[in-house]
This record gives sequence, structure tokens and C-alpha cells, in this order.
Amino acid sequence: MVSLEILKKLTIKTPAKIVLVVMDGVGGLPHPETGKTELESAHTPNLDEIAKEGICGLMDPIAPGITPGSGPAHLALFGYDPIEYEIGRGVVEALGIGFDLQPTDVAARGNFATTDDKGIIVDRRAGRIETEKTQELCQMLQENIKLSEGEVFIRPGKMHRLVAIFRGENLSGELTDSDPQKEGKSPRPVTALSPEGRRTASLVNEFIEKARMLLKDRPRANILLLRGFAKHPQIPTMSDIYNLTPAAIATYPMYRGLAKLVGMEILSVGVSLKDEFEALKENYARFDFFYLHLKETDTAGEDGDFRRKVKVIEEFDCFLPIINELQPEVLIVTGDHSTPALLKAHSWHPLPFVLKSSWCIPDRITKFSERACRNGSLGRFSALSVMLLAMAHALKLGKYGA
Amino acid sequence: MVSLEILKKLTIKTPAKIVLVVMDGVGGLPHPETGKTELESAHTPNLDEIAKEGICGLMDPIAPGITPGSGPAHLALFGYDPIEYEIGRGVVEALGIGFDLQPTDVAARGNFATTDDKGIIVDRRAGRIETEKTQELCQMLQENIKLSEGEVFIRPGKMHRLVAIFRGENLSGELTDSDPQKEGKSPRPVTALSPEGRRTASLVNEFIEKARMLLKDRPRANILLLRGFAKHPQIPTMSDIYNLTPAAIATYPMYRGLAKLVGMEILSVGVSLKDEFEALKENYARFDFFYLHLKETDTAGEDGDFRRKVKVIEEFDCFLPIINELQPEVLIVTGDHSTPALLKAHSWHPLPFVLKSSWCIPDRITKFSERACRNGSLGRFSALSVMLLAMAHALKLGKYGA
Repeated sequence: MVSLEILKKLTIKTPAKIVLVVMDGVGGLPHPETGKTELESAHTPNLDEIAKEGICGLMDPIAPGITPGSGPAHLALFGYDPIEYEIGRGVVEALGIGFDLQPTDVAARGNFATTDDKGIIVDRRAGRIETEKTQELCQMLQENIKLSEGEVFIRPGKMHRLVAIFRGENLSGELTDSDPQKEGKSPRPVTALSPEGRRTASLVNEFIEKARMLLKDRPRANILLLRGFAKHPQIPTMSDIYNLTPAAIATYPMYRGLAKLVGMEILSVGVSLKDEFEALKENYARFDFFYLHLKETDTAGEDGDFRRKVKVIEEFDCFLPIINELQPEVLIVTGDHSTPALLKAHSWHPLPFVLKSSWCIPDRITKFSERACRNGSLGRFSALSVMLLAMAHALKLGKYGA
Repeated sequence: MVSLEILKKLTIKTPAKIVLVVMDGVGGLPHPETGKTELESAHTPNLDEIAKEGICGLMDPIAPGITPGSGPAHLALFGYDPIEYEIGRGVVEALGIGFDLQPTDVAARGNFATTDDKGIIVDRRAGRIETEKTQELCQMLQENIKLSEGEVFIRPGKMHRLVAIFRGENLSGELTDSDPQKEGKSPRPVTALSPEGRRTASLVNEFIEKARMLLKDRPRANILLLRGFAKHPQIPTMSDIYNLTPAAIATYPMYRGLAKLVGMEILSVGVSLKDEFEALKENYARFDFFYLHLKETDTAGEDGDFRRKVKVIEEFDCFLPIINELQPEVLIVTGDHSTPALLKAHSWHPLPFVLKSSWCIPDRITKFSERACRNGSLGRFSALSVMLLAMAHALKLGKYGA
């Protein structure tokens, strides 16, 4: 494994451009009726043409058999070992709602819950209250809670979910959860996992208690549970490592947050695929690396909607000529993880991958799909190789050793 | 690399069943006359059907080029890095004879040998004396030897082989061999490789001397040689790591011992393949993981009997419908290492591998063999991935990260 430290010394700044297209959750499983996966079912002349001209393979996001969350899957694609660079759940959630997290902030994911009169949790999700209700409650708590020191930001998520961000001096994320993650138990006091966390623990407990007093007379959302306390991890930026000027084009806050975490500039973009490709064209001169994210493949997979996932892939395929016109020195198309419609969830399956550049020996694979790409020259490989391959094929990596 | 600690946190207990079939030494080399390997020569309609429905690959037990012993090869299959979890030869032998080794015991493999009147070893195997004779001698030594402290257990193996197990307080396995492993040399005194081993070394030397006095007037077995001193390694069990309830079906003590080492329940089983498959059926409801071991492929390979190895593979193939009827969620068929009849020994060659489950994209490989499996979607991969793949395809692994 080539360390980031070694890599740093090999990078060369050039005008060559790299475009990394991530079709979220693109990998699938065969439909029981046709025996074809989502990609195999889709009509994708442009993707197939790229597969024919480029080098293909099957990529493992983390390791064979491991199903990744979006955080680790993206970190791996950007060249960061996701086992080494762990992102706490609270941070992922804060990024997901688009909160401008500072390096000293401690974030936790939370949810409203229901306790009985003895303080036992009877419903961890407060009857899955509506998002609007959660927004209202978060605002009420935000307006009424003042901590003895520092600040707390209470932001609503979907349904019963929320994010709490603590800001202050010398805060620590090494804390236990207040959420016992089971019904029939009492909420736990938050305790420090290291001496540095003691002050933060008492601050968090103070917050939880103040929230409890404000919520206690409500029938459903009468308590707030917190878990996954974490700080923004210290990560070297992509500019530091690769000597790149990277930009992210993504419509969902989570992916914008992940890109920001590794130092990408987040481009303003609308909500549609067309907007994303417009943003790529408009900003093409200003950067030498673009991460372009397509969310809808994953959403359709999570919904178990095979047909919609096929359609999203086909729609996406129509936009690819825009990239071809820009003629980037390196174009990569892959996913961050698989989300087979049959499983309605992220999965461990390896992903089809293609890299096109003037400096590769075309594999002449005729279809961009799970089964076709396995015959490509990259074989089965780790997502941690993606940035190395991108940099190399853009002629941005010098010789290792004499 | 995903550590066992991380893995532990991802496991989910479900009723889904995994069957891991290990055809010992199944990998081979092409016969000079036909150009076909043992597997390629065998008629195996059932194995071929599994290959068609599952995902295939070529598996390296340890690393390309490394020929494994049975111990490390099996540890890797069970998901334990064999470089990290080293099992001393003495322990493997003790497990092989079914001795109930305690964590503080030190075990060594031994053999009766013949020395001349100057004490030079003239036959390291004492003329390959019969097993019955070795049993008799071991009993005689056991009855007559009392050590100055602790205990020693002397257990016969096959022919001239034996196992010596030392039991006492603070014993160490860090000792040199008494067996010079060559004829024409004298036995060596056992010495400690670390200060902690000094007391154990003198205890072992006391034992060897007492045995010598009792054996010295015999014509053949007039001395006893010891090597491979080792303690039972501290290994987390498969239940600990994978949250499985695992069972082993194996007719040979060595494999039963290896399975016990990782915490499997060892099922009572007769001596034939039929008995093994009967045991699988009878115990199917009680466990969620089965390791089923076939020894005869390895034995035929070690004997250099190409034709018998082909026949054993074909016989085994006939039993596979029994597993199909049980419909395990995950079925894996592979070997622990190759034992090509042409080499009459274990070898480094990678092994054909197939995994069948409802959650895989079938590779449509039409033959279970070394050459056919290399076109599978798993490509060339490490045995350390096997348990991850098994757990994932049984839907027994949660998501890594958010």
C-alpha cells in the first residue's frame, strides 16, 4: 500500500483534468424474471462506448463482503483508507443536513422519543412524528436552551431525527451515548471515555436535562436521545495529497459535506442532473478535478424500484456526451457502493468501474455492467486504487524510486 | 484490512445457514498425458452446476507462492490471519490426536528413533515401527516417568510418532528442538529461547533423559526426539467474532482439533463420506455454520495417485445433492490448499472456489476447476476474504460506517 505521504512526493501539477463520476448505489442484482441486473437491463450506449474505449474492472469499496455506508465508501474513492479515517456518525449527520461544522465542534445524531411516567423508553422514535413537528420542536429547544458555557445548535432531520452540535473550547467527542438503543430501558447519562471528555459530558448532560424539562409534558416527543458523538476528523485535503484543485458537484447535503471534508470546493448547483452537468461545463476551466455525484440510482435502489433505477441509469447515460465534449484527460465512471433494488439497501457487491484516457490499453468490453466489467484488465480491485489510477492516467504522478 | 474487532461489531445473528465444504488438497496440476488437472479430469456435474449458479474465483490460502500446512490454511479459511495467529506444530499434533489441551500446556511432537552406540541417530523413524508398538512404548513411559515438578502426558500417534504434553505452572513453549531433523547427528539438548523458558527446558531435558534410560536397551526405538514445542494460541472463537454457532464435520483428528481451536462444536461422525453427510443432515437444525472436511483428495494427492484423486472427487460430487436439498443460504466449496498428484505434496497453487447464494450475480462458469474458476467475478483473492463473503451473502453483516 502506497501511503499518502509517499504519494504526496510523487504528484505533479499539470493542467490535465480528471472527472470522477459517482453513480450512487449503481451496482445491483439480477431481476428474478430476466436474470439481468439494473445496469444489464438499461440501454446505455454512451456508458458502453466508454467501457469499450477504457479499462474496466470490478471494484470493492472497502473489502470483499463489507457493506459500506456512504461516508467510508466515498473516502475510499477519494483515496483515504476508510478504516484509518473514521468519520463519526454525528459528523456524517451534521454534514448530511448541510451544517457548517467547524473542526472544534462536537456533533451527535439524536431523535425524539417517548418515555413512560417512570422514565422508561416506550418508543425510541416518538411514534415517528412528522418532520414538521420535529422542526417546530427543534426551534423551540433552540430558542429556550442556554448552556452554562459554549453553544448548542439543534437541527431537525427527517421525521423524529435531529442533529445536536456543541460548540465551545476544548470539547471532546469521546463520549458514551445517552440512547440505550433499546426500548424498555432508561436513557443513560452521557459519560466521558477519556479525562478530556469530562467537561463535555457534563455540558451534554446539562443540555439533555434542559431539553427534558421543556419536553416532559408532551404526549409523544417527551425526551431527546443522543448518540454517535464525534468531531470532524483531521484529514489532509486532496490539494495537500494530490496537488489538485478539486471541485464537487452534488445535489445532496451529505455528499457536499463529504467533499468538503476532504477539501473540495463545493459548486453551486440546482437540483437536477441537467444542473449538475451545467455546473461542470461552467466551472470546467477553474479546476483540474471534478467529483460529480448522481444520487437517484441509490434512492431507487433503496426504494426497491428496479424499473426506476434502470430509468435513472438510462437518463444519466444521455448526459454523458457533455463530458465527452469537454475531453477530460481522465474520465472515471463507477459507484460508491451497490444498492440492489432486490435488497432495498446498500450491499457488499463489487461495482463496475471504467477509466478512459489516452494512456490506457482499451479493454474492448462492450457493456458497462457488473458481469461485463469483471473481464476488464483491472480485475477485482480496491476503491483505494482509484485515485492512483486517475492521477497516473492524467500523467500527474512521477516515478517512485530511481 | 478489516480487523476482527471491527467485524465483531458488524455481525448480525440470523437463522441463515452457511455450509463451508473443504476438499483437502483439491487443487492439482495437469497430467502430462492429457494436459488436464485432477478436477478437469473428473466428471462433476453437481460441482459444475454450483459453479454455474454461484460466484467463482481462484483463492490463495496465504499469499501467492506460499505453500501452507493444514493449520495455517484452515485458519485462513476460518478468517484468522495465519501470520498473526501462529499455531505451533506441537499444538497441531496434540489437536490431531484429540488431546484436550489446556491453555497453559506445552506440547511437542515427537518420534521414536534409533541411535548407534555412540549416540548418533541412525534412523529418525526407528524403522517406522508399528503403531501398536508405539502405543505400548508410550504407555510404558507414561507409567514409569515422574518429573521433579509438573506432569507429562505421552500419547502415541501413527507409526513412530508421538506427542508429549507438559503440564505445570508458568511453562513456556519458547524452546529449541531436541530433534536435529537429520540422521548422522546426535540429539540436541533442549534450550530456552527466552529467560522464561529456562525452567521448562530443564524439565523437558529431564523427561528426555528419563525416557532414554527406559528405552536404551531396545534395538530400534531406543531414543525419543522432540520438536515444535508450543502452547495453545489465544484465539477468539468463531462465536465471538461472527456470532455464529459453528459445527465441524471431519473424520481426521487434526481437522477436528483445528475446528475446536476456533471454538466449533465437533460432531460425532463415522469414517466415510456418507457418515459426514449424514451428520450434516442430522445436525442441520442445531447450528448456523458447518465446516465439512473431505480428507481423501489430499491423501491421494500426497500418494501421487492422480487417478484415485479424480475418483475421490467424483465420489464426492455424488453427495452434493444432499446439501442442495438442505438449501443452505450460503454454500461454499473449495479446498484448504493444493496437493497436486504430480508433486506428491502440498503446493502453493491457488484453489478453485465457488460460493452459491440467492444474493450473488451468477458467473455462469460451466466447470468447477482451476482454469474455469479464474474467470469468475472474485478474480484472484485471499482465503481471508472467505468468511467475509460467507457472512455477507448470508445477510449476517451490517453496514460499515454511516
